[in-house]
Amino acid sequence: MPDSFSVRPIGTLHTPWRKIGDCPRNGRQPDPAPLCTARVLPEYLEGLQSLDGFSHLILLYWMAPVKPFQLMFTPPFDTQPRGLFATRGPRRPNPIALSVVAFEGFDGPDCLKVRYLDCIDGTLLIDIKPYLATTDSEPNARMGWLDPHATRNDNTAKPCGPSTRC
Amino acid sequence: MPDSFSVRPIGTLHTPWRKIGDCPRNGRQPDPAPLCTARVLPEYLEGLQSLDGFSHLILLYWMAPVKPFQLMFTPPFDTQPRGLFATRGPRRPNPIALSVVAFEGFDGPDCLKVRYLDCIDGTLLIDIKPYLATTDSEPNARMGWLDPHATRNDNTAKPCGPSTRC
Repeated sequence: MPDSFSVRPIGTLHTPWRKIGDCPRNGRQPDPAPLCTARVLPEYLEGLQSLDGFSHLILLYWMAPVKPFQLMFTPPFDTQPRGLFATRGPRRPNPIALSVVAFEGFDGPDCLKVRYLDCIDGTLLIDIKPYLATTDSEPNARMGWLDPHATRNDNTAKPCGPSTRC
Repeated sequence: MPDSFSVRPIGTLHTPWRKIGDCPRNGRQPDPAPLCTARVLPEYLEGLQSLDGFSHLILLYWMAPVKPFQLMFTPPFDTQPRGLFATRGPRRPNPIALSVVAFEGFDGPDCLKVRYLDCIDGTLLIDIKPYLATTDSEPNARMGWLDPHATRNDNTAKPCGPSTRC
């Protein structure tokens, strides 16, 4: 097994939050959720073609600066220690965060307008993926210990209306 | 901006597929979807606590060996070139794959039973996250150019029944 792989930034995320302490618990918690942007480096712009028509994207980004990883910790909103891999906390062996964001089009060729980010301004972007309801959406998923702590507001999982396939 | 970050494997994925050419397009395409496993390295086992009660997880893994990234390509099931970031193809600047998997419990302390993987046997795992319906599930998301090509079978996005909050 190789010891490690190398990951390179492909751009930068811009959000209203300047310090980690100001960031929301997740991108759906602020209601209304502010508009944020993802600015992609010039050498990767060609890969942004064909994004029209996707309402949601998955962004992967590097959570830095973070302290060394911590396999058990007590989340700030909880009273007992939890295993790291049962949380979305930042102190992971590989501090890669994932957000499902609403994609609201381009503001210039290198700048995606998105909603539902939770990170500090200047966070480094490492991937953009199209969100596919057929493989990524499990509206009935059970959320274990996190269920009573989950964010539930106008931004969270949308009810299925008569015009949808639910 | 730093040039790169280092990512380390935390375990190995075991699937029925030995060659890339044998892998399904996505983990929901095989119907029924075979049981797969995620085996976590001893030094990270403590972080697996508190996973009981989650029905789904997000696994991040390193797609290797892959060729250099390719910002435009014609997917095998399509007829025209698409921007890489509007696809889930493997030839990315950072070849990190993401699958939303069904979690079916443990087979020993280091081994998670999961369904809906799409990668070759021996693929290296880099993160495990709990799947949260309230932030990760967008059942009505529009899928742009991929819509007519999307996988739709008994494994894909579950209809919302009377017992769910949809």
